[in-house]
Amino acid sequence: MQQENSAVTIVEPKETARVEAFSDGIFAIAITLLILQIQPPNVTHGHPLLVGLGEQWPSYLAYAISFMTILIIWINHHNFFRLVGRVDHRFLILNGVLLLAVTFINYPTLVLAQSLKELGSSLTSLIYRMGSDQDTAIIFYSATFVFVSLWFNLLWRYTTSRPRLLSQRAQPEVIAAIDRQYRWSPLYYVPPMLLGFFSVAASLAVNALLAVSFALVKPVES
Amino acid sequence: MQQENSAVTIVEPKETARVEAFSDGIFAIAITLLILQIQPPNVTHGHPLLVGLGEQWPSYLAYAISFMTILIIWINHHNFFRLVGRVDHRFLILNGVLLLAVTFINYPTLVLAQSLKELGSSLTSLIYRMGSDQDTAIIFYSATFVFVSLWFNLLWRYTTSRPRLLSQRAQPEVIAAIDRQYRWSPLYYVPPMLLGFFSVAASLAVNALLAVSFALVKPVES
Amino acid sequence: MQQENSAVTIVEPKETARVEAFSDGIFAIAITLLILQIQPPNVTHGHPLLVGLGEQWPSYLAYAISFMTILIIWINHHNFFRLVGRVDHRFLILNGVLLLAVTFINYPTLVLAQSLKELGSSLTSLIYRMGSDQDTAIIFYSATFVFVSLWFNLLWRYTTSRPRLLSQRAQPEVIAAIDRQYRWSPLYYVPPMLLGFFSVAASLAVNALLAVSFALVKPVES
Amino acid sequence: MQQENSAVTIVEPKETARVEAFSDGIFAIAITLLILQIQPPNVTHGHPLLVGLGEQWPSYLAYAISFMTILIIWINHHNFFRLVGRVDHRFLILNGVLLLAVTFINYPTLVLAQSLKELGSSLTSLIYRMGSDQDTAIIFYSATFVFVSLWFNLLWRYTTSRPRLLSQRAQPEVIAAIDRQYRWSPLYYVPPMLLGFFSVAASLAVNALLAVSFALVKPVES
Repeated sequence: MQQENSAVTIVEPKETARVEAFSDGIFAIAITLLILQIQPPNVTHGHPLLVGLGEQWPSYLAYAISFMTILIIWINHHNFFRLVGRVDHRFLILNGVLLLAVTFINYPTLVLAQSLKELGSSLTSLIYRMGSDQDTAIIFYSATFVFVSLWFNLLWRYTTSRPRLLSQRAQPEVIAAIDRQYRWSPLYYVPPMLLGFFSVAASLAVNALLAVSFALVKPVES
Repeated sequence: MQQENSAVTIVEPKETARVEAFSDGIFAIAITLLILQIQPPNVTHGHPLLVGLGEQWPSYLAYAISFMTILIIWINHHNFFRLVGRVDHRFLILNGVLLLAVTFINYPTLVLAQSLKELGSSLTSLIYRMGSDQDTAIIFYSATFVFVSLWFNLLWRYTTSRPRLLSQRAQPEVIAAIDRQYRWSPLYYVPPMLLGFFSVAASLAVNALLAVSFALVKPVES
Repeated sequence: MQQENSAVTIVEPKETARVEAFSDGIFAIAITLLILQIQPPNVTHGHPLLVGLGEQWPSYLAYAISFMTILIIWINHHNFFRLVGRVDHRFLILNGVLLLAVTFINYPTLVLAQSLKELGSSLTSLIYRMGSDQDTAIIFYSATFVFVSLWFNLLWRYTTSRPRLLSQRAQPEVIAAIDRQYRWSPLYYVPPMLLGFFSVAASLAVNALLAVSFALVKPVES
Repeated sequence: MQQENSAVTIVEPKETARVEAFSDGIFAIAITLLILQIQPPNVTHGHPLLVGLGEQWPSYLAYAISFMTILIIWINHHNFFRLVGRVDHRFLILNGVLLLAVTFINYPTLVLAQSLKELGSSLTSLIYRMGSDQDTAIIFYSATFVFVSLWFNLLWRYTTSRPRLLSQRAQPEVIAAIDRQYRWSPLYYVPPMLLGFFSVAASLAVNALLAVSFALVKPVES
C-alpha cells in the first residue's frame, strides 16, 4: 500500500456505521439497565442482610439469564451487520422494532424476578408449589424471547432477499449457512414458553440452559 | 507532511463525527430509558398477575408510540447530519436543546401512562369516560412532540441558511426536497394535541397512527 | 491527494479516540439521566393533573439548567480534546474524576428540585419565604459547578504544561487564548454559590443566566 | 480494486472496534448509573437538609470508591484491548461475563451504602459498633471486586495463550510485563474482603486505599 502526499485522509465511514453504533448503544444500555431491576433486600424487618441477599436469588438468576441472552442477541446482530452493506428506511424501522423488543426484555425480567420472590425464598418451594402468577411471569418472559427471535428472523430475511443491501464481501455460502442456522432459532424459545404452563422450575432451567448453550456454541460467522 | 509506504493512516474523522456520536448516544439512552417508565403490576392486591399485566396496556402503548417517535426523529437527525459538513457553537446549542427535548419525552410518556391507568383498566372506559386529567396528559404529550418538531425545523433552517455549515456533498435539490418535507412537519402533531381537548382515545389513536405512518413512509434522503 | 492500489486502509484511530468516546458516553448518559430526576406529579390527592404538572416547575428549571450546564461542559471538553494528542495514566485519572463530578451533578439537581418543591408551589413564595433547606440545596448545587469548573482547570493545566500530551496541530496562540478564558471560569460559579446564603431566587436566577450566557457566547475554539 | 484520485477512503475499522465500542458503552453506563444509587436525603422528618446531606456520607464514599474502581478496570481493559487483534466467540462470551460483573458492581454499592446508613450517621459509630449486616455488606462488596479481578485474569490468560488473537503489534516483553502485573492482582481485593469479618471501617479504608493506589500507580502499558 502506498500513499503519497497524503497528510490527512477524509474518512468516509462504512455507510452502516452510524446505524451500527446507534444499535450498539441501545444494546449496551438495555443490557446495563438490567441491574436496576434488582432491588436491594428489605432489611428493616429485622432479619439478617445475609438472608435478605440470599432471598434475592430469583433476581440474580433472571439478571444473569437476561444479560447473557441480550449478549448473544448482540453477538448475532454484530455478525449479521458484517454482511450488511447498505440500509434503507424499512431496514431502519425493522431494526428499530428489534431494538424496542430487546429493550423491553427489562420489563419481563423484573416481572419474573418479583413474581418468583413472592413465591418464597427457597428453591424447593419453587419446585413443589406452583403458583399461576409464576406461570404467567415465566411464559411472558419466554414469549418475549420468542418475539425477539422471530423479529430477528424477519430482519434477516428482509435483508438477504434484497441483494443491494448486502455487503459486497458477503459470501453466498456464509449467507446460506446462517440462513440454515436462523431458520429454526425462534423455535428454541417455544419449549420454555410452553413448559411454563406446567413447571416454573423446568421453564427457568431450560431458559438458563439455552443461554449457556448459545454461549458455548459458536454461531456461523460472516 | 509526507508519508511513503505507510500502512497506517492517521485518521482525521469527519469534523462532525463527535457531535454525531454524542447526539446518537443521547438518542440511544433517551429511547432506552423509556422502558424504566413501565412500572411492574401491583400483585399484592390478590388479583392475578395476568390481569395486572393486562392493566398496564397504557404503559405499553405509550412506550411503543414514544419509542417509534424517537426512532423516527433519530432517522431524520441521521439523514440531516449527512448534509452537515461543519458545526459552530450556535449549532451545538440548538442541537443540544433538541436533545434536551428528545430526552424530556420520557416524562410526558410516564405522565400519560400513569394518567391512563387511573382511568380504569379497559379500553372501553377510555372511550366513554373522559377525565380532564387524561386530557391534560395527552395534550402535554402531544405538545412535547410539537415542540421537538418545531425545534428540529429551527435547527434545519439555521443550518441550511449557512452554506459554510453544509457538506460539500449536500446537493441543492436534496436540500430543497427535505425543506419542503420539513416545512409542514410540525403541523402533524398539532391535530393530536387539539384532539386531546375532546377525546383522549382519538388523540392517542392519531399519535399511534403518526408513528406508524412515519415508519412506513420513507423520508427524503440525502 | 492520490491513492494507488489501496483497497482497504487499516485504520489506526487517533490515540485519544477511545478516551474521547468513553468520556462522551459518560457525558451523554449523565445528561440523559437528569430526566429520571423529574418525578411524576402526585395525582392521588384529588387535585387536577394540570396543577400537579405546574407544581413541578422547580424540577423543570433544575433539569434545564443542569442539562445546559453539562452540555456546555461537554462543548468545552470537546474543544479541549482537539488539542490533546496523547494521554497518560494521570490524565486518564484526572479526566475520570472530572467525569465523576459531571455525573454527580444529577444528585444536587434532584436535591434542589425536591427542596424547592417543598417550599411551595408558587414562584412568589420562593422569593418572599426563605427556608434554610433551600439555601443548603442551592449552595450544594452551585458548589458542585464550582468543583467541576476547578477540576476542569486542573486537567487543562496538567495537559498544557506537558507538551508531549499536546497535539502537533495545537497552536500556541490558541492555547494561550483558551488559557486566558479558563483562568477565571471557576469564579463564575462562586457568586451564585455565595448568593445562596441570602436569596434562593437570586442564586437560581444567576445559575440560569450563566447557562444562557455560555450558550450564547462562543468559547475560544481550537 | 483500484482507486485513483480518490479523496475518500473506504474505512475498514480494526476488527475489534465494535467489541471495544460495545464494551466501552457498558463501562460508561455502569459507571454513570452509580449516581442513581445515591438516594436523596429524607427531609420530611423535620431535621435540616444539611444534616440529611451529611448523613448520606456512606453513599458518597461507596459512590466514589466504585466509580474509581470501575474507571481503573476500564483503563486496564483499554490497555488490554490494544494488544488484541482478533476476537473469537469464546472471547466475546468471556468479555461479556466480565461486563456483567462490572455492571453488577452497582448492586453491592447500593447494598453497602444502605447498610452503612442504617448503622448511624457518624463515622465514630461505624468504628466502635460492629453490626453483622455491615460485615455482610462490605464482604459482598469486596467479593464482587475479587470476582471481577479473577475473571479479568481469566480473559487475559485466554487471550495471551492464543497467539492468533493477539495484535501483530503486541510485543512479547509487554505481554510478559502485564502478565507479571496481573498474576497477583486478584489477591489485592482479598484482604479487604477478609477484613470485613473483623472491621467494617478497616475494610472500607483498604478498599478506598486500593482505588487511590491504582489511580496513582501507572499500569504497564502496551
